[in-house]
Amino acid sequence: MKAPPLQAVLFDAYGTLFDVYSVGLLAEQLFSGRGEALATLWRDKQIEYTRLVSLGDRDGRLYRPFWDLTRDALRYACKRLALALPPEQEERLMNQYRHLSAYPENREVLQALRALRVPTGILSNGDPSMLEVAVRSAGLQELLDHVISVEPLRCFKPDPRVYMLGLRTLQQQRPDLTARQVLFVSSNGWDAVGATWFGFTTFWLNRAGHPAEELGVRPHHEGRKLQDVRALLEGARA
Amino acid sequence: MKAPPLQAVLFDAYGTLFDVYSVGLLAEQLFSGRGEALATLWRDKQIEYTRLVSLGDRDGRLYRPFWDLTRDALRYACKRLALALPPEQEERLMNQYRHLSAYPENREVLQALRALRVPTGILSNGDPSMLEVAVRSAGLQELLDHVISVEPLRCFKPDPRVYMLGLRTLQQQRPDLTARQVLFVSSNGWDAVGATWFGFTTFWLNRAGHPAEELGVRPHHEGRKLQDVRALLEGARA
Repeated sequence: MKAPPLQAVLFDAYGTLFDVYSVGLLAEQLFSGRGEALATLWRDKQIEYTRLVSLGDRDGRLYRPFWDLTRDALRYACKRLALALPPEQEERLMNQYRHLSAYPENREVLQALRALRVPTGILSNGDPSMLEVAVRSAGLQELLDHVISVEPLRCFKPDPRVYMLGLRTLQQQRPDLTARQVLFVSSNGWDAVGATWFGFTTFWLNRAGHPAEELGVRPHHEGRKLQDVRALLEGARA
Repeated sequence: MKAPPLQAVLFDAYGTLFDVYSVGLLAEQLFSGRGEALATLWRDKQIEYTRLVSLGDRDGRLYRPFWDLTRDALRYACKRLALALPPEQEERLMNQYRHLSAYPENREVLQALRALRVPTGILSNGDPSMLEVAVRSAGLQELLDHVISVEPLRCFKPDPRVYMLGLRTLQQQRPDLTARQVLFVSSNGWDAVGATWFGFTTFWLNRAGHPAEELGVRPHHEGRKLQDVRALLEGARA
């Protein structure tokens, strides 16, 4: 089966374009020897909370912005690890999360996609203000056509309404675009699976070299670095 | 605010009446030094997979029985920990999961509830055949009025439809029963929160002494052992 030509690319944000584990460095400064454990549990809880509020009420009444859930997850993680978290340290960690490191290859890959005239966007669980700061801090605002937050939907990935919002946003410029013509890129295996369930063509940016999720479906493409996405698009257009 | 009289009790199964970490003993025999890591990751992935398939399609098209997701989670966990899992070891671990240890205090507490004429049931993510074997292995079938699986709904907790199914089942005998009159007992903090969101009166059986989830709501009651549930019911009726 020949893959359909890819006409647009949507990227997950946290973990994909922005390095969520970079907070581990500050966490290690604040809690010597526990920084990695804190960063990992914080991230796990943050994702868990997005799922619980999405599952607990389909009409979004339990929704709270990603920023708030991120703070709650930090508080839980510190309690669980028996780390005291005075307000000023909480603020430092949250600020670090607001200004996550971007992966250095982002710029070159987004520039290459722009040269190919491929529309690009972020489709993220983050709320708009978080995403705006992250994109601006990384100097990527000129290289992305769309920065799409789940916020208007009041639910989180992998709810299919999120992926549909990404498709609909792209269709505003290209009404005939199909889900299969959109390449969705995520470093989170479960997000790549969710997007595959939805119908996107998917690329699992498996930075950590983890095994694939055993969920009955595999992302269409897999690579270890963002340049692999560029190669895929350039190959598809060659 | 006076709590409403509690008229019925629903129990979560895995982790609450049945000890899911008891598989860790066999895991340790099979994978020396890695048993606990495997049991923990297996359990985490199992729960994660229930949420992903529930979120990924609200109409249940991604649903697979808990047994199947449990097997998938085991396979993933072994791959992630770089443990070879030959078919006969997979079967031994899955069989262990089918025959989980029941907590020894279950019987006395369920007998006390029966003496109080309080209807009891299990409300579980497990599929009916798993639950039947677990209940029979533990000799609890005479002490439970209902064993309720999510299976007909094709979604998992904390989807509120699951808790509603529990309430509706109890209402078959007691049509006027309200959610607040049902005590829902779970050792899983997120499950106790989900049931609180739904409207049940909730008891978090915090066996592990973990901090409460930071999800904006707390279960109504908390204890460390199942006998605390008995004390609550006996106190409410005294």
